[in-house]
Amino acid sequence: MNKVGIAAYGITPFTKNDEKIETVMLRSLKELFKTNPSIQQDQIQSVIVSTNNNSKYLAPVLSEMAGIKPKISHTIESLCNSGSNSIVSAYSYISAGLADVVLVTGAERYDSPGQILEWDESRGEYKHPMFWASIFTKSYKRQFSISDERLAIVSVKNHKQAQENPNAISDKKITVEDVLKSRKITDDLRLLDCSRPVTGAASIILAKEDIIKKNSQTPVWITGIGQQTTSAGFTKNASFSSMESTKRAVNDALKMCNKKISDVDVAELHDAFSVCEPIALESLGFSNPGQGIHMVEELYNTENFKINPRGGLIGSGHPLGATGIAQTIEITQQLEGNANKRQTDNPKTGLVHNMSAAATSSTVLVLEK
Amino acid sequence: MNKVGIAAYGITPFTKNDEKIETVMLRSLKELFKTNPSIQQDQIQSVIVSTNNNSKYLAPVLSEMAGIKPKISHTIESLCNSGSNSIVSAYSYISAGLADVVLVTGAERYDSPGQILEWDESRGEYKHPMFWASIFTKSYKRQFSISDERLAIVSVKNHKQAQENPNAISDKKITVEDVLKSRKITDDLRLLDCSRPVTGAASIILAKEDIIKKNSQTPVWITGIGQQTTSAGFTKNASFSSMESTKRAVNDALKMCNKKISDVDVAELHDAFSVCEPIALESLGFSNPGQGIHMVEELYNTENFKINPRGGLIGSGHPLGATGIAQTIEITQQLEGNANKRQTDNPKTGLVHNMSAAATSSTVLVLEK
Repeated sequence: MNKVGIAAYGITPFTKNDEKIETVMLRSLKELFKTNPSIQQDQIQSVIVSTNNNSKYLAPVLSEMAGIKPKISHTIESLCNSGSNSIVSAYSYISAGLADVVLVTGAERYDSPGQILEWDESRGEYKHPMFWASIFTKSYKRQFSISDERLAIVSVKNHKQAQENPNAISDKKITVEDVLKSRKITDDLRLLDCSRPVTGAASIILAKEDIIKKNSQTPVWITGIGQQTTSAGFTKNASFSSMESTKRAVNDALKMCNKKISDVDVAELHDAFSVCEPIALESLGFSNPGQGIHMVEELYNTENFKINPRGGLIGSGHPLGATGIAQTIEITQQLEGNANKRQTDNPKTGLVHNMSAAATSSTVLVLEK
Repeated sequence: MNKVGIAAYGITPFTKNDEKIETVMLRSLKELFKTNPSIQQDQIQSVIVSTNNNSKYLAPVLSEMAGIKPKISHTIESLCNSGSNSIVSAYSYISAGLADVVLVTGAERYDSPGQILEWDESRGEYKHPMFWASIFTKSYKRQFSISDERLAIVSVKNHKQAQENPNAISDKKITVEDVLKSRKITDDLRLLDCSRPVTGAASIILAKEDIIKKNSQTPVWITGIGQQTTSAGFTKNASFSSMESTKRAVNDALKMCNKKISDVDVAELHDAFSVCEPIALESLGFSNPGQGIHMVEELYNTENFKINPRGGLIGSGHPLGATGIAQTIEITQQLEGNANKRQTDNPKTGLVHNMSAAATSSTVLVLEK
């Protein structure tokens, strides 16, 4: 089995701009080539595009625009965790010996059709993400007696951390009061509790061991992979205060690399809404049930960037198909020691948690240097 | 590296019906379970949906409908060769040790958005497939002095063979005269030279060696894989009378399993239009350049089902995301000896050729019993 590492990456600012998806994809790839002049187009044997965009054949389109002639090329879609699904596919091609070097480009426009899941009409009048987020928030607050004020700290922390991320859409710190005063979307959800759909792209190149070792002095490896789908409709969830798919995914990912959750030094979690961060902390095993929000408060009070250093989805913005790639790039930069003012203290093991549709599916990746 | 074989399959009739994509997907999966009662939902660790449909999250949707809780689940799109791309991904997950049993379901509606590639506006007023097919036909006829009459034999042969395929949309044999008298679409293309967009689905289960051996007395293995993308826009093609991506894909696929093209006993080729079959025969190496149509004539005259036994795309219909799966099922049935009146003479090695967009990308699979 080939060992798989991260050879290069490039990312665009996350904005509300109206560029075509092809332009946005290429922008992140140009950034990748600019910062990694040792990577050549003719080395790339597979191109995977991660997106919810309805345009077809985008992997060959990107390849032609960039001068790449890959063996394998296609688009992968799985709503909000399209990005981590694509990284797992890239890992598989290398591990199975079908490709040595794989490019994954995740891209989305702010008006992505992936915002709405039309299949489950039982979800009612709200667009899908708002509806489940509101039910999760109500359930979590009720089960663990958490107030709106305490939950608001997630958004406050992640907006603050995003100020050190030059690609984040958030351009200012906010207060708990700002969150509570922001527009009420449902009884339990306010505008500043939500990540924002944005236009953006992120490209990452995975490669097999010898190529990684030749290109990098601080190689970062993908050592753990766990994925789980429990359903498509969140009304099937066993609980609205925990993430069953995340529990199973993290278990498999840690088992694969023989680690414990306490070995993880830095993590990107899927904070699509404020409530998702404490629930994810608990389901991943960082905190006991009901204690996630306490961990967020402690991290904020000690200015510890361990969780969602780039500002997470709430601070950075959430370009669906790009999010899992952007999370993985952040953890790679952390492990390389290249995270500038977001840098955590010499992390050796990092984790990515990327999910879709009320945690009906989750991916967990473990990265090590 | 885990050896990968085909554990089960199910397919729907290819029709012009108006069912929802979810219904069509599930129909092929029900057929799979019906004909393979030994396969249980809880064995399936990955679900890949192959489609150009714009609905999102279809792999979790199918999983929930069918009572499957997979680890890996997502949609793969690459226009007309989405199906074979999905099979290669399934192969990789098993080979890389991330899953033991993978379901791939390809499905499309007759009104698939994948019929049109909007990216390359230089393609002019015609919908994309007609445009390139017409140019290929003119180029091939001119280069090798082939008449419309001779080319028509492809459609005649494949309609004839489709009469033995209970799932094919073609319901009658046609003559060369029928082809020549059918509606003229361009100077070089007639209606009966074209495969038809249809509604249909095909499901296949890939699994690792021990599971295959336990379930099947006539196991069929995927032993060769080759893929190549040369561009997205066909105007970049070096020639309009050959398929460069196919040449490279078949070379890699045969190399992987240490075979020659003369070892292949039966093949499904991507005859999206009449001209594609002789060109594919030549680019795959079955025929010398310009001799492909002669091979088609010989096969027709000797009633030899070696090429496109199920009637190919022209006879069966072309549900984009399902086509590569349906081709692979046909070759599996041939190798198992389960192809009924389509059965070729004790084949040991079979080949699948699936391509997109004027052969700007191709997949070749080799299957062996």
